[in-house]
Amino acid sequence: MTQVKAALLGATGAVGQRYINMLGKHPTIKLEILMGGESAGKKYGEAVHWLFPEAIPEEYAKAMVKTADPESAKGCDIVFSALPTEVARDIEEKFARAGFTVVSEASAHRMDEDVPLMIPEVNAEHLKLLEKQGKKRGWKGKIATTPNCTVTGLAMVLKPLIDAHGAKKAIVTTMQALSGAGYPGVPSLAIADNVIPYIKNEEEKVAKEARKILGTLSDGTIKPHDIPMGVTCNRVAVMDGHTETLYAEFGEEVEPQKIVKTLAGFRSEPQKLKLPTAPEWPIVVRSENDRPQPRLDRMAGSVPGMAVTVGRVRSGIDKKAIQLTLLSHNTIRGAAGTAILTAELMDREGYTG
Amino acid sequence: MTQVKAALLGATGAVGQRYINMLGKHPTIKLEILMGGESAGKKYGEAVHWLFPEAIPEEYAKAMVKTADPESAKGCDIVFSALPTEVARDIEEKFARAGFTVVSEASAHRMDEDVPLMIPEVNAEHLKLLEKQGKKRGWKGKIATTPNCTVTGLAMVLKPLIDAHGAKKAIVTTMQALSGAGYPGVPSLAIADNVIPYIKNEEEKVAKEARKILGTLSDGTIKPHDIPMGVTCNRVAVMDGHTETLYAEFGEEVEPQKIVKTLAGFRSEPQKLKLPTAPEWPIVVRSENDRPQPRLDRMAGSVPGMAVTVGRVRSGIDKKAIQLTLLSHNTIRGAAGTAILTAELMDREGYTG
Amino acid sequence: MTQVKAALLGATGAVGQRYINMLGKHPTIKLEILMGGESAGKKYGEAVHWLFPEAIPEEYAKAMVKTADPESAKGCDIVFSALPTEVARDIEEKFARAGFTVVSEASAHRMDEDVPLMIPEVNAEHLKLLEKQGKKRGWKGKIATTPNCTVTGLAMVLKPLIDAHGAKKAIVTTMQALSGAGYPGVPSLAIADNVIPYIKNEEEKVAKEARKILGTLSDGTIKPHDIPMGVTCNRVAVMDGHTETLYAEFGEEVEPQKIVKTLAGFRSEPQKLKLPTAPEWPIVVRSENDRPQPRLDRMAGSVPGMAVTVGRVRSGIDKKAIQLTLLSHNTIRGAAGTAILTAELMDREGYTG
Amino acid sequence: MTQVKAALLGATGAVGQRYINMLGKHPTIKLEILMGGESAGKKYGEAVHWLFPEAIPEEYAKAMVKTADPESAKGCDIVFSALPTEVARDIEEKFARAGFTVVSEASAHRMDEDVPLMIPEVNAEHLKLLEKQGKKRGWKGKIATTPNCTVTGLAMVLKPLIDAHGAKKAIVTTMQALSGAGYPGVPSLAIADNVIPYIKNEEEKVAKEARKILGTLSDGTIKPHDIPMGVTCNRVAVMDGHTETLYAEFGEEVEPQKIVKTLAGFRSEPQKLKLPTAPEWPIVVRSENDRPQPRLDRMAGSVPGMAVTVGRVRSGIDKKAIQLTLLSHNTIRGAAGTAILTAELMDREGYTG
Repeated sequence: MTQVKAALLGATGAVGQRYINMLGKHPTIKLEILMGGESAGKKYGEAVHWLFPEAIPEEYAKAMVKTADPESAKGCDIVFSALPTEVARDIEEKFARAGFTVVSEASAHRMDEDVPLMIPEVNAEHLKLLEKQGKKRGWKGKIATTPNCTVTGLAMVLKPLIDAHGAKKAIVTTMQALSGAGYPGVPSLAIADNVIPYIKNEEEKVAKEARKILGTLSDGTIKPHDIPMGVTCNRVAVMDGHTETLYAEFGEEVEPQKIVKTLAGFRSEPQKLKLPTAPEWPIVVRSENDRPQPRLDRMAGSVPGMAVTVGRVRSGIDKKAIQLTLLSHNTIRGAAGTAILTAELMDREGYTG
Repeated sequence: MTQVKAALLGATGAVGQRYINMLGKHPTIKLEILMGGESAGKKYGEAVHWLFPEAIPEEYAKAMVKTADPESAKGCDIVFSALPTEVARDIEEKFARAGFTVVSEASAHRMDEDVPLMIPEVNAEHLKLLEKQGKKRGWKGKIATTPNCTVTGLAMVLKPLIDAHGAKKAIVTTMQALSGAGYPGVPSLAIADNVIPYIKNEEEKVAKEARKILGTLSDGTIKPHDIPMGVTCNRVAVMDGHTETLYAEFGEEVEPQKIVKTLAGFRSEPQKLKLPTAPEWPIVVRSENDRPQPRLDRMAGSVPGMAVTVGRVRSGIDKKAIQLTLLSHNTIRGAAGTAILTAELMDREGYTG
Repeated sequence: MTQVKAALLGATGAVGQRYINMLGKHPTIKLEILMGGESAGKKYGEAVHWLFPEAIPEEYAKAMVKTADPESAKGCDIVFSALPTEVARDIEEKFARAGFTVVSEASAHRMDEDVPLMIPEVNAEHLKLLEKQGKKRGWKGKIATTPNCTVTGLAMVLKPLIDAHGAKKAIVTTMQALSGAGYPGVPSLAIADNVIPYIKNEEEKVAKEARKILGTLSDGTIKPHDIPMGVTCNRVAVMDGHTETLYAEFGEEVEPQKIVKTLAGFRSEPQKLKLPTAPEWPIVVRSENDRPQPRLDRMAGSVPGMAVTVGRVRSGIDKKAIQLTLLSHNTIRGAAGTAILTAELMDREGYTG
Repeated sequence: MTQVKAALLGATGAVGQRYINMLGKHPTIKLEILMGGESAGKKYGEAVHWLFPEAIPEEYAKAMVKTADPESAKGCDIVFSALPTEVARDIEEKFARAGFTVVSEASAHRMDEDVPLMIPEVNAEHLKLLEKQGKKRGWKGKIATTPNCTVTGLAMVLKPLIDAHGAKKAIVTTMQALSGAGYPGVPSLAIADNVIPYIKNEEEKVAKEARKILGTLSDGTIKPHDIPMGVTCNRVAVMDGHTETLYAEFGEEVEPQKIVKTLAGFRSEPQKLKLPTAPEWPIVVRSENDRPQPRLDRMAGSVPGMAVTVGRVRSGIDKKAIQLTLLSHNTIRGAAGTAILTAELMDREGYTG
C-alpha cells in the first residue's frame, strides 16, 4: 500500500473531527487538507468546537481551513466528505468532475444507481459500480458513499444472518446516541429525562439503504435485497453508540447457538486484506445478559469502535425467529471509520488516484 | 359509593409513596393505616425517603408506621399491598386469611389461577374469580392483583386492537424509566451515558401477564389469550414513564386511521361507572411525529397519569401490520393508579368489605 | 384591583411560555395579545416549540401571533417583554414612546439610571424612578425591568441579611439550570457528563444588578449598595432551578439560628399588599442537611416557584461569617414570576395604564 | 528501582478497580495479590461489577480473590488498601503489625498523628513520620495514607499559592462526581435533574486533611497549616472529575498572571525523581474561559488523570484575592493514582520492603 494523500470536506463538524481523530496515526493515509464553509480562512484550532478530550493534534490545530473547492485539494488522492447533506450534492460532484475520488458520508448520492453504498465487510464487490460511473456521468473522478450511522451495524449483522440462515424479515427498534445529530444537535432541554421517539427521515433511510447494501450486483447494477424491514428510531440520552433491538424471522428453524457462532465467526474482505482500519472480528458477541451497553461496548474491536457488539441472542416467538440486541459506535463504525475502511479497500483495489 | 377505609402495606417504598400521593384527596377511599417492615414504629415522615417535590401530607407525615400484621389494619375495608415480591406472598396471604380484601401490586400471586390480574378497562369481568377464591383457599378474605408496570400500557392498547381488528402477533421493545426499579434502584453510575438492555425476569412477565389479562373467563377460570409476543426490555435514563414500540400483525388489512379511531375511542367499564380514578379516555392518540415523549406525556389523562399515550401509528411492512409507540406512567397507571382503580371497581361491584 | 389587559413580547421563547403558563388563570391580569418576530402571522400553537407537559391553553394555541409593534397592543395596560436582549432595547423603547407601560425581563435597560430594576420584596420603593422617567426621555409610557435569573434569589436572601445583620461581603458560586439558557440553548453533547464552568457576562451582571437592586433611592436616583461580591457561575445538568452557595461575611458575630430566623421571617410589600403572585413567605428555610435540591425545592412557595429555598445555614470560618445554599426557580421567580409580581405592584400603586 | 510486589485490599470496589486499571502496565510495581471480603474465594472476573469499558486484564480476571489476611499477601513489598472506612482500621493495622508496608486510601488512619497523609508533590518530607511510627506502635510494618478525593486537587493548588504568594484564606465550593460515592453509590433517581447540596462528613475532611497535608514537619510531628477554609460540597451528575471553585485571599496584592505562572510552573519531588506515575506538570492551566470541564479535562496530564487542571484565574473582590476553578480526576489523582505515586516515592526513598 502506497501513501495516500487525503483531503477532508466538512472538517469542523462532529464527524469531521472524528476523521482527524482517526487519521492522526494512520499508517497509509495522510490527511493533508482540511476544507470548510464558514470556517474557511481560519485556523482549524480556532474554527472548530472540538468535542474530544484529547487535544487537537498540533499539526491540524495550526492548519488553515481551505474553501471547499477542488483547487484546495490539488495533489490529493482521495477526498473524504463529511458535509451536511444540503450542500453535499453540489460540492461532491464538483470534486468528482474535477477528477477526485470522493468517499462521502453524506446522504446526497447514497441511493444513486451508479454510486456504491459501502460497508466493506458486507459488499466489497459493489465498488465495481465505479467502473462505469465516470463514463456515464462525464466525470474524471468518482464518488463512493457510506451509509447512515444507524444502518451500518444492522447491515453487518443482517449480512451473515441472510447468507447463512436466510433471514427474511426484520423488525428493528433503535435507541440512538446524541452525537448522531451532530453539534449543537439535540438541545439538552429536549432530551433531559426524556426519549424522543422519532428521528426525521431516519426510518426510511435505514430500510432503503440496508436493502441496497445487502443487494447483489449483476449486469453492472445493484438489485436491492428484498428483506422487508419495520424500523422505529428513537433518540436517547447517550453520547455515542446506537443500540438496536432486532427481531428477525427466518425461513427455517434457527438455533440461538448457531446464530451466535455465525455472527462471532463472521469475517470478510477487509479482514482477509488486513486493511489497517478493519477490526479482526467485525462482530463481537457477548454472552452476559446485560450487554451490549453503549458506554461499555461502543469502543469494541481490535480497532476501537470498529466492531459491532451483539448480545441477548435468543429465540423469538417460535423457533423460526431470533431476537437480539446490537450496538455500534455511530461516528466511528457508523461514519468516519467505515469511510476510511472504504478508502483503504479502494486504494488496495486500485480505485483511488 | 360509600366511604372505604384503606390500609397500605409497604408504605415507604417508591410505589407506596405514590399511593399516599394519589389517595390524599380521594373522594371515597380514605387511607388510614400505613404499614411497613423496618420502618414500623417510626413516624412515616421520618422513616421514608420521600421522592416527590410536594411535601408529605401533614396527616401522613405524623402517622406512626405499623407492623405489617392483620391486627394493625383492623377496621379497614381494603388493604393495598406495595410490598417487595420476596415478602409479599406470605404477608398478603396472612391478611386474606384474616378476612381482608387485598389489592396487590406485587408479583407474588399474579399468575395464581384463582387470582384476578386486573386492569379495569381490560378485564373487569375477571373479578368473578374472587367468588370461588376464598372457598378454595379457606380464606375469609381475598386477593386481587394488578400487573407489572410494563404490561399495563401494552395490554390497554392490545385490548381494542384484538377486539376490533384481531391482532395476532406483537413484537415489543421497551425503554423503561428508572422509577420502575424502585429506590435506590438503578445506580447513577450504571445508567449515566448508557442504556441497560436487560431487566431481570421482565420480558417473561410481560408476555405471561398480558396473555392472562387479555384472556377470557369461562367456567370460572381464565383461558389466556394466545397472542404470541416477542418482548425486549431496556432501561433508559428517564425518571418516570415507560415508552414501548409495538409492531403488531393482524389477520387482515388494517388502515392506520382506523387503528387511531379504535384506540382513541376506546372506553370501558371504569368509564361507564365513572370511577373516580378512571380517565375519561383511557388512550390518548397524538398526531405529532415526535410524540409520545415521557417527559411531556406521562401525566396524560383527565386523571393525571392514568391515560396511555399512543403516537406514530403507521403501517408496518405490509398492510396487515401496524407500528406504533405507546407510553404510560409506570408508577401511576402501571402501579398505584391501576390498583386504586381496581379497588374502586371492587367496591362498586360489592367485592370489598 | 381592576382587570389589567396585557400584551406579551417574545411569546414563543422559553420565558414567554412561562408567562402563558402563569397568566392562564391570573385573577387580575388578562393576557390578550401575543407578539413575536419570526412567529408573527402564525397561530401560536403552530409557531411555538412548547416546553411544558400541560397543553397550551386552547385560547392561546389558537391565537394569532402579532408583529412586535405598538399597534398590535392597542388597548393593553401593560406590555410584558420576554425579548432576547439584542432586539429588546429598540422594541421596548418604541412601546414606551407610544405610551405603554413595559415590564421587561430583558437586560437591555436594566442598568439605565432612570429605570427601576425590580424585585418587589426587595425594592418596591424603586418604582418611584418611573415618576421622572417619562419626562426625561420624552416618553408617554415607561419601562420597568426585572433582574437576571441568577440575581433574584441571591438578592432576596441578601436583603434581610444586610438589613438585619449588616452583611458586608458575599462570595457566591452558582450551579445554574439549562432553562436559563433558553431553547435550544445548551447542546446536550455539551452538558452530558459535564459541568460548564462559565456563563458569558453572567458574573458581571450578578454583581452589578444585585448592587442596584439592594441600593437606596435618594434624590430620585439609586445609590447602589457597596457590598463587594465575588461570583462564579457554572452550568449543570438540571432542567430548572438555580442553586447557589453563599459565603457571607458580617461586621459582627452572627449566630446561624438568628440568620435562619431572619430569613424565614422575611416578608415585605407584596406580602402586605397580598399581591396575587406573592408567596406568603418569600424565603423557605429547610433544616435537612441535604436541601435545597433543585428537583425537590424549585416549586416551593404558596405560589409555586415564587419562594426561594435556603438550607445548610452554618457558620463560616469564624463567627462573623455564614455559609448557606439557596435555590430559586430561574424561569418563575427568576423571570416571569417576578415580572408579573412587579406588574401587580405597579398596578396597585397606580403605575399602569 | 527494583521490581515491587504489591497486594491490593478491597480489589472489587470502584477504587480497587482503578488500581488494576493503572497497575496493569506499571514499569516497577507488579500487582500480584487481590484481596476482598465477600468476594474472597471467587475469581476476580466473576466477583467484580467491572465499571470500565476496557476488559479486565486476563491475568486478573482469572485470579482468585483471597481473604483480607496478612497470610494472603506473603512475599509482597507493599499492600494497597482501597477498603471501605468501616473495616479499614482493623485490617490495615493487622497488616502493619505483620510487617507490611500499607498505603491506604481509606480515611481510618489519615488524621493519626504518626501517619503521613501524602500527596507526593505537596509533602514528600512527611514520609519521615514513618521512621518513628513502627517503634511507637509496636509494628514491624507501617501505614501511609492518601487523602480524600476532594482534597487532593485543592491541596495541590494551594501549596504553590501558599509558598509563593502567602495565601491566607480559602473559600471553596465543590461539584463532585458520582464515582466519588463508589458503586452502587448515588441512586439515579436521586441525582437525575438534580444537584445534591451535601456530602456527609466531606466538608470537615477537606478542611482538616488539607491543613495536615500543607503542614510542616518539625520535631517529628506535623504542625498543621493554619489557613482557614470555608468548604461547601455538592454532588452533580458527572461520572468522573471533581470541579471546585476557589476564592483565595492573600496578604498582599496578587496579579492573576503571576498566579498562572506560579501554578503552571509548579513541579516537585516526584517530577525531579521522574517517578513513573508523576505527571510532567502537576498543574495544567487553561486560558479558555470555559475550562476546566470534567469531561474534557479529567484525563489531563502526561500520565492521564494525574494532572490538576486550573482555569478562570481572575482577580477577586479586590487585588488581594484570586478566583479560579480547578478540576481533578477523583479516582485517579484523587485516589489510586496518588497512592501509587506515594508507593513509588516510598520505594525510591527506601520505605518499602
